[in-house]
Amino acid sequence: MALTDELRELAAAVSNWGRWGDDDERGTQNLIDGAATRRGLDTVRAGRTRSLAVPLDQTSPQRGGAPGRIAPLRTMIGINQTYVPGPGEAAFNDDTVVMAMAAGTHIDALAHVTYDGFMYNGFPDSAVTAADGATRCGAQALGPILSRGVLLDLPAVKGVGRLETGYAITADDLDAAVAHAKVALAPGDVLLVRTGQVQLLHKGKVEAYNHDTSGLSVGTIEWIRRHDLGAVFTDTYVFEVWPPEDWGSMMPVHMIHLRDMGQIQGQNFDFEALAVDCAEEGRWEFLFTAAPEPFTGACSTPVNPLATF
Amino acid sequence: MALTDELRELAAAVSNWGRWGDDDERGTQNLIDGAATRRGLDTVRAGRTRSLAVPLDQTSPQRGGAPGRIAPLRTMIGINQTYVPGPGEAAFNDDTVVMAMAAGTHIDALAHVTYDGFMYNGFPDSAVTAADGATRCGAQALGPILSRGVLLDLPAVKGVGRLETGYAITADDLDAAVAHAKVALAPGDVLLVRTGQVQLLHKGKVEAYNHDTSGLSVGTIEWIRRHDLGAVFTDTYVFEVWPPEDWGSMMPVHMIHLRDMGQIQGQNFDFEALAVDCAEEGRWEFLFTAAPEPFTGACSTPVNPLATF
Amino acid sequence: MALTDELRELAAAVSNWGRWGDDDERGTQNLIDGAATRRGLDTVRAGRTRSLAVPLDQTSPQRGGAPGRIAPLRTMIGINQTYVPGPGEAAFNDDTVVMAMAAGTHIDALAHVTYDGFMYNGFPDSAVTAADGATRCGAQALGPILSRGVLLDLPAVKGVGRLETGYAITADDLDAAVAHAKVALAPGDVLLVRTGQVQLLHKGKVEAYNHDTSGLSVGTIEWIRRHDLGAVFTDTYVFEVWPPEDWGSMMPVHMIHLRDMGQIQGQNFDFEALAVDCAEEGRWEFLFTAAPEPFTGACSTPVNPLATF
Amino acid sequence: MALTDELRELAAAVSNWGRWGDDDERGTQNLIDGAATRRGLDTVRAGRTRSLAVPLDQTSPQRGGAPGRIAPLRTMIGINQTYVPGPGEAAFNDDTVVMAMAAGTHIDALAHVTYDGFMYNGFPDSAVTAADGATRCGAQALGPILSRGVLLDLPAVKGVGRLETGYAITADDLDAAVAHAKVALAPGDVLLVRTGQVQLLHKGKVEAYNHDTSGLSVGTIEWIRRHDLGAVFTDTYVFEVWPPEDWGSMMPVHMIHLRDMGQIQGQNFDFEALAVDCAEEGRWEFLFTAAPEPFTGACSTPVNPLATF
Repeated sequence: MALTDELRELAAAVSNWGRWGDDDERGTQNLIDGAATRRGLDTVRAGRTRSLAVPLDQTSPQRGGAPGRIAPLRTMIGINQTYVPGPGEAAFNDDTVVMAMAAGTHIDALAHVTYDGFMYNGFPDSAVTAADGATRCGAQALGPILSRGVLLDLPAVKGVGRLETGYAITADDLDAAVAHAKVALAPGDVLLVRTGQVQLLHKGKVEAYNHDTSGLSVGTIEWIRRHDLGAVFTDTYVFEVWPPEDWGSMMPVHMIHLRDMGQIQGQNFDFEALAVDCAEEGRWEFLFTAAPEPFTGACSTPVNPLATF
Repeated sequence: MALTDELRELAAAVSNWGRWGDDDERGTQNLIDGAATRRGLDTVRAGRTRSLAVPLDQTSPQRGGAPGRIAPLRTMIGINQTYVPGPGEAAFNDDTVVMAMAAGTHIDALAHVTYDGFMYNGFPDSAVTAADGATRCGAQALGPILSRGVLLDLPAVKGVGRLETGYAITADDLDAAVAHAKVALAPGDVLLVRTGQVQLLHKGKVEAYNHDTSGLSVGTIEWIRRHDLGAVFTDTYVFEVWPPEDWGSMMPVHMIHLRDMGQIQGQNFDFEALAVDCAEEGRWEFLFTAAPEPFTGACSTPVNPLATF
Repeated sequence: MALTDELRELAAAVSNWGRWGDDDERGTQNLIDGAATRRGLDTVRAGRTRSLAVPLDQTSPQRGGAPGRIAPLRTMIGINQTYVPGPGEAAFNDDTVVMAMAAGTHIDALAHVTYDGFMYNGFPDSAVTAADGATRCGAQALGPILSRGVLLDLPAVKGVGRLETGYAITADDLDAAVAHAKVALAPGDVLLVRTGQVQLLHKGKVEAYNHDTSGLSVGTIEWIRRHDLGAVFTDTYVFEVWPPEDWGSMMPVHMIHLRDMGQIQGQNFDFEALAVDCAEEGRWEFLFTAAPEPFTGACSTPVNPLATF
Repeated sequence: MALTDELRELAAAVSNWGRWGDDDERGTQNLIDGAATRRGLDTVRAGRTRSLAVPLDQTSPQRGGAPGRIAPLRTMIGINQTYVPGPGEAAFNDDTVVMAMAAGTHIDALAHVTYDGFMYNGFPDSAVTAADGATRCGAQALGPILSRGVLLDLPAVKGVGRLETGYAITADDLDAAVAHAKVALAPGDVLLVRTGQVQLLHKGKVEAYNHDTSGLSVGTIEWIRRHDLGAVFTDTYVFEVWPPEDWGSMMPVHMIHLRDMGQIQGQNFDFEALAVDCAEEGRWEFLFTAAPEPFTGACSTPVNPLATF
């Protein structure tokens, strides 16, 4: 069994196919208009900026993950290499890297997940090829994201260090966190859903970090659609809760978000220091900036996201 | 011959060693303080944002360049791959990449160039190793850059489509372009030096783009130091002029910028559309944002830089 | 137009589908039986051995070839790296490589070329997937090749240094070279077809080496099938003649060899020194050994082939 | 502490520096002369051949091993890719790979281990560079190996399935296995030392396979030197016993073999089926063939070794 009948009804109800035209490949990025960017910019006071990315190296969360998802291996192609012999010459250090696109902090291209033969907006799943990658809905269709970011600090709301392993986040949880953030959500806002799961990665417990994990439940899908969020990011590997709520429907949030809603989403963000910033500032809104790497055809792409207060 | 005596005097005169402490690995990023970020933010009106990166794929400018600097090769590790058999299941598209760190639009880490056995701030060049890369002054020491960006549109100033191949940009050229930009430079500003050279890359003429090329001359070094710029980026492959002004001193701007000044710099930016934006807006200043990818130990690192009006 | 009607008739006439069973994935390797191996061993006198491979490095013939076929880039992951501090400790040098499977001297797996939806022996072309590569007729189905090798020294027969660029080798050429080699071909023999084209690679003229090139014509297909050769290898990049004899039928030798005949073949072999050996020995037969690298799922695979006299 | 005084005396006693000239980079490959090759060839009867390699894929023993030693990741760069549109056209399957040189069955280049600033035959350890790898004693100095192979089936001698984890093989063990093999060793012979450890790899127990492990002890070094073996290969990851016999002297067999003796050696061979062959044949000698991949500058290199009866 794939999506249950009930989930298929939900998928149809929240679908954004055609909403921004038959050729649209940007999905909810369309919601991040000038007003959303302006709203983000208006939250900034001192200009203090923080990266929300995890380091890209062999400690990456993909280590030991899905087949082929290799952690970044950076190697030198020249160390203090001179091109002219003799003392005092310019010596160059150059390097190269091999990595899974989804190895660290990344944004999913909408082509990342398909079902029933289609990706977002009705493009056929054959639009992904070995030679060219995602010719539709790939990373080349993602643009820069500047919007108001809102941190939903679920552990703070619940008074715990991190959400319990395997906890399925509900729509009520999101409402409570929005109230805690003292923000009125607006279309195009970027939601940063903190679970605290990334603490396990900090401790080097990669497999425990990967799963089992707290994450978004199918019960949040309609809520996210109703709020017309520009993007939703989490500090987990799976994004949605694992083990799945129903083993018969695997990865339903990915399926409905990416394929039906065109919902921009991403994973392996790090919100630990940001949560401290927010608590210190007494506000959970800020300028959120993300400039996904422009890999042509990519199905996920690395990003170094920023929060600016 | 490496740096001439004259250039060694210049290097000593513009040196920033010790300026921000003996342990500093950030160089001129220290100049991008809250005031600089605030100054950048204050230029924004509508929030219109543009990427300044070239695509990351086999059209990369590194194709055919220095040995080992391979263009990004992205390959699929799963195409519409289901993990559960049967119709309607979630199908995943995943990919991986191998590339030179400097393959596309990138920022040089300060460890990229050394001479006389030292990198910036007196760290020994042995701080770069095969196993760990740049343990000092690597990409891990680069943080996010948010500052005021200023486009110096040299072709516009000179009334040409692009600077002549091999043209050595002078300090007077920079002064003229600042006047054209109607901006009073302030410490921590980010300078975007447009030559138009990237037009050759747009046309697929990779080797012609790479070199010969217009670029910064040694005559601009003191000027850049005097203005205390946070970073300087160009739309060329070499950054400085090629062929060199003096074949006896190869890559002197790299040597003095990176090793003596700790000057943050980068290459293969694309300012073509930005120049049109600026002309339309009638202003050449904007919020500049760059979040270099956090590769631990990297000597250059990919970045998708943004200009926001 | 793909294969002409005439070529389709030829393909049907030379087909080996079903000849070694419906599950066969080894094709003409089945012809290399104990007698063939024994025949090869019996040619050996002194045991002098020569490699027929080109070096695996950035000088590889794939440099600048088809998209994604990158030359081997070998990088160090540790240089004189000690794992215990102090003098006199063991210091390790370790490296890694990225390369196209077909970057250097290689054997094609039978899955390398398909048409009409099928690969050799009627396996569907869908047996090649992004996740697993060639699950049928991949390199895992290739075993070691030990047989009698016969050098067909076409330039020697024709009294030229190398075959003219674009020359289409005929069946008569092969007969003449067999006569020159003073060998009676037997089933399972391995044919090494020397054109001299690899001389261009030796001179660093990679693009000239790649094509245009002399190579096997469609007129040799029936001849090769009739002789029931175990494998056929050439010292060219394309294997068959380029430009094609008929632009309407591209790569017909690949199509019929790999897909219809299950003919083991390979490219970028180097027969220059071997030709000298053979002339010195006054014989053009020897023990041929090839142990293709056992990459699971590979569609081509590196090999370091040997000739032993 | 590195090598103890006693081991340094041993190293001096077994040293082959200068034995084959001051420029020699081939070490004990010099012992594999025409007589050795001829001796190997003379053992062959039917010509039955077996590969001694493990598969090159994500099941590689390097998975989870030393940092940077990544298992082979093979990806498709084209799947049934046609270059001309239309039905019936040639469709190509092409792939690429990234892997540690030592990922699977491999031969160590003599440059793999150095100490006191030198590699084999007194070449300075600075002969290994990031740009060029091992410019001395790299894989380019390895040639094809054809010699008599002798299987030392230690588990058979001891009447066990596999040697006990952590067992240190002694010179007496080797003598007993030679007697069991009914062979009089001669200079240039290739020794295949079976421990049975690879059975753990077959079962997917990669970490258990890697270590702890049975392996050669320092007590075998003089024995191996006295017999002037052309090469020594094992079916383990470490080659020598692990944990080390003396934690103060780590990897002493590697150090003395590679750096002092120039002893060709290799790891991750698979002798399980070979042991069955030998028992069936009632003989433990055969033609051993290895054609290491010719990666320029490599410090280890993949090989698909063969035994022919």
